[in-house]
Amino acid sequence: MKKNFKKALSWRIWGTAVTFAIVYLFTRRIDLSAMICAAEIAVKLGIWYAHERAWSAAVPLAKEGTPFVLWFTGLSGSGKSTIANIISAYLEKKGRRVERLDGDTVRSIFPDTGFTREARNSHVRRIGYLASILEKNGVTVVSSFISPYAESRDFVRSLCGNFIEVYLSTPLEACERRDVKGLYKKARAGKIENFTGIGDPYEPPPKPEIIIDTEKRSIDETVEIIISYIKKYL
Amino acid sequence: MKKNFKKALSWRIWGTAVTFAIVYLFTRRIDLSAMICAAEIAVKLGIWYAHERAWSAAVPLAKEGTPFVLWFTGLSGSGKSTIANIISAYLEKKGRRVERLDGDTVRSIFPDTGFTREARNSHVRRIGYLASILEKNGVTVVSSFISPYAESRDFVRSLCGNFIEVYLSTPLEACERRDVKGLYKKARAGKIENFTGIGDPYEPPPKPEIIIDTEKRSIDETVEIIISYIKKYL
Repeated sequence: MKKNFKKALSWRIWGTAVTFAIVYLFTRRIDLSAMICAAEIAVKLGIWYAHERAWSAAVPLAKEGTPFVLWFTGLSGSGKSTIANIISAYLEKKGRRVERLDGDTVRSIFPDTGFTREARNSHVRRIGYLASILEKNGVTVVSSFISPYAESRDFVRSLCGNFIEVYLSTPLEACERRDVKGLYKKARAGKIENFTGIGDPYEPPPKPEIIIDTEKRSIDETVEIIISYIKKYL
Repeated sequence: MKKNFKKALSWRIWGTAVTFAIVYLFTRRIDLSAMICAAEIAVKLGIWYAHERAWSAAVPLAKEGTPFVLWFTGLSGSGKSTIANIISAYLEKKGRRVERLDGDTVRSIFPDTGFTREARNSHVRRIGYLASILEKNGVTVVSSFISPYAESRDFVRSLCGNFIEVYLSTPLEACERRDVKGLYKKARAGKIENFTGIGDPYEPPPKPEIIIDTEKRSIDETVEIIISYIKKYL
């Protein structure tokens, strides 16, 4: 209110000075120019204020869109981080406030986080809480966690407003063949316990919003499918 | 850019229509009114645009201020939640985006959180991470947790940009005398283990930004001290 008023006043000074100059240039009459400007100030201050309010009420909402939580789940090597990074960059380009939450990054901040069912569930719940509070504050969240258990994923869903579960359903064989981080090799050699898909189960989501097998779809195709889904929130 | 341009156009239509009406009213000459309006459109579109950009660049920054994390620590019953609620309401009134994080609330969402040193430290670290990400996204955080251990409080400090530790140093005797939630009574009766101040230690912060003994200061005084400290971020 205060800001709008100051801005209106500031513009009125500039606007009316210009009007005065123009009218005087055309008529060479100071009295007429002054009267026209006086009338202009009286009428336009009100109209300008109404115009300003209408725009500031209408536009920001349409621009910021609805925040949401895009939750990638799937085996190690299914492409969660890669796809999530692309989507996150896309949203940022669109002027969105985006927070990118990644399993590896968060675990590097909390190195004591375990890999038992209890520890994983607790970890995912905490991240989901974080995501839901960010969403509540207008920040869109793009998260990539193996999040192997239905229980904690459903907990996260219950906390969030617009929760979009993206299940990368790439089969174990394909993920193991890629083995980008060399983790499957280590797990097969018995060097990693509780590795999802080897020593630990992955519970596929029964009703994800999006399901894509990245063995059958290229990165570009995968990104396109997701973007066409989230369009309604943009 | 696009929005500003549309808005400029919209205002020019309204603004020039009014100018035309006023000039015609004073001169009764359509040709003169039209010429003046043509000149006005040419000159004002540019000036208006510059004026708009100057204001949208200058004002929002000054209005939003710098986000920060206000972290209340102290014994149960020292007044953390009460004071934090008042400060949080004050900031919201000032137009801030504020997230209020409270020990009891968060524990009700995560009822399995334990009270051992390890569990408490891990809990506080996680909350601190959440606070730091909110701060990074422009949200000011007002948190109230007993957070009894220096280790995890310092971890939170290291994550946050503007971390303000508010230590409510009210002595145990005073907190126990208040015993708002009846917890001290239960702890003395041996019904609560690991209760801070009774079965568990509280490590006072060596260098808090603010330290207030709420036995010696009223609620109003306490609020005033804190507000005068955070003024620089508003």
